[in-house]
Amino acid sequence: MREMDLASRTGPRIPVIIDCDPGHDDAIALMLAFGCGRLNVLGVTTVAGNTTGENALRNALAVLSLIRAAVPVGRGADSPMLRPLETARDVHGESGLEGLSAPRPELRGSDLTAVEFLSSALRQSPVKVTLVPTGPLTNIAIAFLAFPDIRAKIERVVLMGGAAGEGNRTPSAEFNIMTDPEAARVVFESGVPITMVGLDVTHKALIYPREVEALRESGRVGAFAAGLLDFYSRSYRSKGFEGNPVHDALAVAAVFDEGVITTRHVRVDIETRGEFTAGRTVVDFGGVTGRPPNARVAVGVDRDRFIAHIMNAIAALDAGVWRDARPDRM
Amino acid sequence: MREMDLASRTGPRIPVIIDCDPGHDDAIALMLAFGCGRLNVLGVTTVAGNTTGENALRNALAVLSLIRAAVPVGRGADSPMLRPLETARDVHGESGLEGLSAPRPELRGSDLTAVEFLSSALRQSPVKVTLVPTGPLTNIAIAFLAFPDIRAKIERVVLMGGAAGEGNRTPSAEFNIMTDPEAARVVFESGVPITMVGLDVTHKALIYPREVEALRESGRVGAFAAGLLDFYSRSYRSKGFEGNPVHDALAVAAVFDEGVITTRHVRVDIETRGEFTAGRTVVDFGGVTGRPPNARVAVGVDRDRFIAHIMNAIAALDAGVWRDARPDRM
Amino acid sequence: MREMDLASRTGPRIPVIIDCDPGHDDAIALMLAFGCGRLNVLGVTTVAGNTTGENALRNALAVLSLIRAAVPVGRGADSPMLRPLETARDVHGESGLEGLSAPRPELRGSDLTAVEFLSSALRQSPVKVTLVPTGPLTNIAIAFLAFPDIRAKIERVVLMGGAAGEGNRTPSAEFNIMTDPEAARVVFESGVPITMVGLDVTHKALIYPREVEALRESGRVGAFAAGLLDFYSRSYRSKGFEGNPVHDALAVAAVFDEGVITTRHVRVDIETRGEFTAGRTVVDFGGVTGRPPNARVAVGVDRDRFIAHIMNAIAALDAGVWRDARPDRM
Amino acid sequence: MREMDLASRTGPRIPVIIDCDPGHDDAIALMLAFGCGRLNVLGVTTVAGNTTGENALRNALAVLSLIRAAVPVGRGADSPMLRPLETARDVHGESGLEGLSAPRPELRGSDLTAVEFLSSALRQSPVKVTLVPTGPLTNIAIAFLAFPDIRAKIERVVLMGGAAGEGNRTPSAEFNIMTDPEAARVVFESGVPITMVGLDVTHKALIYPREVEALRESGRVGAFAAGLLDFYSRSYRSKGFEGNPVHDALAVAAVFDEGVITTRHVRVDIETRGEFTAGRTVVDFGGVTGRPPNARVAVGVDRDRFIAHIMNAIAALDAGVWRDARPDRM
Repeated sequence: MREMDLASRTGPRIPVIIDCDPGHDDAIALMLAFGCGRLNVLGVTTVAGNTTGENALRNALAVLSLIRAAVPVGRGADSPMLRPLETARDVHGESGLEGLSAPRPELRGSDLTAVEFLSSALRQSPVKVTLVPTGPLTNIAIAFLAFPDIRAKIERVVLMGGAAGEGNRTPSAEFNIMTDPEAARVVFESGVPITMVGLDVTHKALIYPREVEALRESGRVGAFAAGLLDFYSRSYRSKGFEGNPVHDALAVAAVFDEGVITTRHVRVDIETRGEFTAGRTVVDFGGVTGRPPNARVAVGVDRDRFIAHIMNAIAALDAGVWRDARPDRM
Repeated sequence: MREMDLASRTGPRIPVIIDCDPGHDDAIALMLAFGCGRLNVLGVTTVAGNTTGENALRNALAVLSLIRAAVPVGRGADSPMLRPLETARDVHGESGLEGLSAPRPELRGSDLTAVEFLSSALRQSPVKVTLVPTGPLTNIAIAFLAFPDIRAKIERVVLMGGAAGEGNRTPSAEFNIMTDPEAARVVFESGVPITMVGLDVTHKALIYPREVEALRESGRVGAFAAGLLDFYSRSYRSKGFEGNPVHDALAVAAVFDEGVITTRHVRVDIETRGEFTAGRTVVDFGGVTGRPPNARVAVGVDRDRFIAHIMNAIAALDAGVWRDARPDRM
Repeated sequence: MREMDLASRTGPRIPVIIDCDPGHDDAIALMLAFGCGRLNVLGVTTVAGNTTGENALRNALAVLSLIRAAVPVGRGADSPMLRPLETARDVHGESGLEGLSAPRPELRGSDLTAVEFLSSALRQSPVKVTLVPTGPLTNIAIAFLAFPDIRAKIERVVLMGGAAGEGNRTPSAEFNIMTDPEAARVVFESGVPITMVGLDVTHKALIYPREVEALRESGRVGAFAAGLLDFYSRSYRSKGFEGNPVHDALAVAAVFDEGVITTRHVRVDIETRGEFTAGRTVVDFGGVTGRPPNARVAVGVDRDRFIAHIMNAIAALDAGVWRDARPDRM
Repeated sequence: MREMDLASRTGPRIPVIIDCDPGHDDAIALMLAFGCGRLNVLGVTTVAGNTTGENALRNALAVLSLIRAAVPVGRGADSPMLRPLETARDVHGESGLEGLSAPRPELRGSDLTAVEFLSSALRQSPVKVTLVPTGPLTNIAIAFLAFPDIRAKIERVVLMGGAAGEGNRTPSAEFNIMTDPEAARVVFESGVPITMVGLDVTHKALIYPREVEALRESGRVGAFAAGLLDFYSRSYRSKGFEGNPVHDALAVAAVFDEGVITTRHVRVDIETRGEFTAGRTVVDFGGVTGRPPNARVAVGVDRDRFIAHIMNAIAALDAGVWRDARPDRM
């Protein structure tokens, strides 16, 4: 049994909550999280970012329905803490999953909001939980502000966001952090251990066309994943990328396989003002600020290993193994 | 019966929650709220501002113990949302009630935090509730962010804070708003009706020495109130004030007696950046911004009427009338 | 002889350079400067502000031609130091003197730019000179930066600009300072004595309709002045003013008649950032900053006296007295 | 004759003005400029930056005296346009040339200030001139503001400053730009062609210890240069550099040998605000801003070629060839 093999290789599943704004690459991240067999996904929360809060919830439910992952889904913030929402309509289209005719969701959202679910799940958990935000950090920040005690129940936050080098929304800033810089600041200054998986590595975490074609053949989930990547890749091809970055999924992979990235433990400050630099993650590799380190910043990625995780996870989902892989506590 | 008279004059009591950072004038505000006979104080929440979060809670409990007001007291934020706390040690001393040997509190704080109490009390209330913040708006903002639905249960926010004219912490900014400008911004942009009782009127809401002496004679509560005003007045005398502004209490008075202030309905924006202007409440009396009004800004005050409310309330507390005046729902 | 009377009353003429952006009220300021008989106007420099740099020069030359004041006119900056120009087209119209068919200028501009004229005139002057800026402070700031030594040759800067209270361009900022806040900062931090004649007094320095009618009868100059005030007044009437502020002229009057305003010597800092407050003159009346005073801020005005100066000056110009009143050094 | 060889290789000398704040590497830059035989140095201007304005002038005169380069030296700004000066005392020591007993200058500064010299030299030059700033851009910006016409006489500005990647003064900003961001903004938005030689390449433009030893043997100038590099290298060795960046000299080399660097023509915006990012050169390699290119940003360097230029120039100075190499117009 493949699943048994995976489990035996890895010990107990790691409890996580995924906070996302699907978004094409968020969808792949969800597939990896449920298909990898290494994570115990306690729930999913959604947030406005790539698309509106309404779309993000619907898209998350659609993807989870497709992969039959019946976890609680809490809808979160419809806008950043202090700013108006500007979605990534140019990348993800009006629906957030443009190009896909996503299946009608069979699942329904939770009665709890994202913040309520986060506080409730964390307080109830007997062990520390890892948070995996793949969108703006709005929900996480608000939960930390409203319920400071929950920080003690967090193993770490492994987030997709930021860039030590060049941004994508502006030359200075990556989309997730720029969308809600104040939320990012709250999280980076919260004292919780943080792993920042930013553009410095996700722009190297490419899936190549031949790999997308292989996915397409793997079954219903694989075909959907290939469709996601088809659409998403267009904007990247036009920028000269040979493949397609699968940003958000890399944060998920980094939770269960630390070898997939290399990191440096450094100071990261979040610029919330600045005329040209709002939303920048200011990474002090050189140690010139003298401020204490507060994040492990990913600086290297093992692309082959990362893509293998994706291929395996989606194959597992298509093989139905996920049914045995459902969270321990459900 | 005096209390009956008051009640017959005013109809049903107005449900309120007081969010404060005692602080000398916050203490007077609490006395007015419980002694006026016009408010149904559902609870009190505390926040770091004039003094630390720990001191603010202890001071609130001390004052409530003195006046035997056994309402829930929820401890709130220990620091502003995005900034370090800078207390008003220069005005209120290390303890927040310097100069007083406050009675040891007989009451204990609630198990609920301020944010939890706010959300719970508002959601449970069959009618809309008025919030009366007399400190930084941290708790209120976090509650709005974490539980956006509660905004619909708020009658209005009547806050002590801000200044259309000159500030007190800086030439631009009043202490409460400057302490947490981002929180103020969340509240002023929340869509909830706001009455801003700022320095423009509180600096005219003076209690004169002869009135303080009269208070001192009224009994145990009056003597304590006079002690509060004795200390607090020192910094104001040195600035040339003939009396002593009772800032926070004016916000309480404005809840049950709209005639105590006059207001203008205008746009107020909160400056969160600025080198010299962070924390300024930018009041657009001239209508030059074209932005829609979002607050009623107090521009006039009936001092005599305000001071009469304070004198009456403290007399009522000393007469023990407060026992009949306790909140409907307790 | 009227002129003799004036001279005997006032001693030697005060040497000044007027830096302006005409603008209706700048035109009145020029008339007052040349007609008052108390100033020795060494030259005029122009700056983009109310209108473009090109228009400002042409309008200054037109007004000076009308009153036959053949002083050097140096054209200055076409835009603020660090920002794009936003003119006051809404107040002064496309031409800067909308509503007037200004006479074709008979005078021509100097070969020297404003900055060159300022440095040359100041360095050559045997005595200290008073600068009277009635537009953005761009020229003055650049001259101070390029030729720091000239600051020692300045008696004081008496400027129209700023507001301790409410602004006019925004609730925070007056037009001249907001147009080039960085220039204002250079000037206010230059160490040169400054008198700030801001909206706090100019909004009380009104000329009433009956006074405008009297002007209209005084002759060619009076009729032109009345035309300026007719147009300019429209935007003020609509805001509820009973008369028409003659902002810029008050700075001129304050040079030769200190009794026309009352001032307080205080700290003024210039906000150059701020989302809602850029361009604010932050006036520390309360002394809370502890920073040393750097400006005399006008807080009171003797309106009748000010208007009498304008009436007399324009009458003098129409009586031709100006011919005897031309600058000593021409 | 070596000098003849150089001249025959390169055609007429390129007219330049060097604006510097010596500073150890500025001193090497001056040696390269005068020793390379390819530049016609019309003059040198100094500016506060690495050290005070007074020290910068004295140090420039000392170096020029040592190499017997009798060009005009204009002293410039003693502080940034809008900020207080913060020198690089930690890198260059109190004197700006710490560790050296610089020869007493035999030359004296010009009667013209830096701004006066710049405007005068540029206006008089029959051909366009290249400016080579190796310090904060204060002088250049002020000259552009005071004399906008001189921009038309500038071939290009080849500056040492900025970083597309990590800064050195802060994680965001390089020292020269951070010292006077507003000046940098004026220059980058001036419309003049700009080549930005930043840390991205100067941190790779290392001189190795064996090369320093070779320099030391070349003569009086070489020994002095080796002394400069000895001291300067200390702070770099401690950061893990194997050699010693010769930042400022690379800008000089890039003027006469374009092959020494490779560049990309892109948009560069200067952040003047920002809590963590003030002074950042925001380089838009990805073209996401849509703003037009305004600078050629150095992205690659031919180290060996650069160091050869330095060795040759200093050898030439020690061989006395410089006497034949003096500027054409002197």
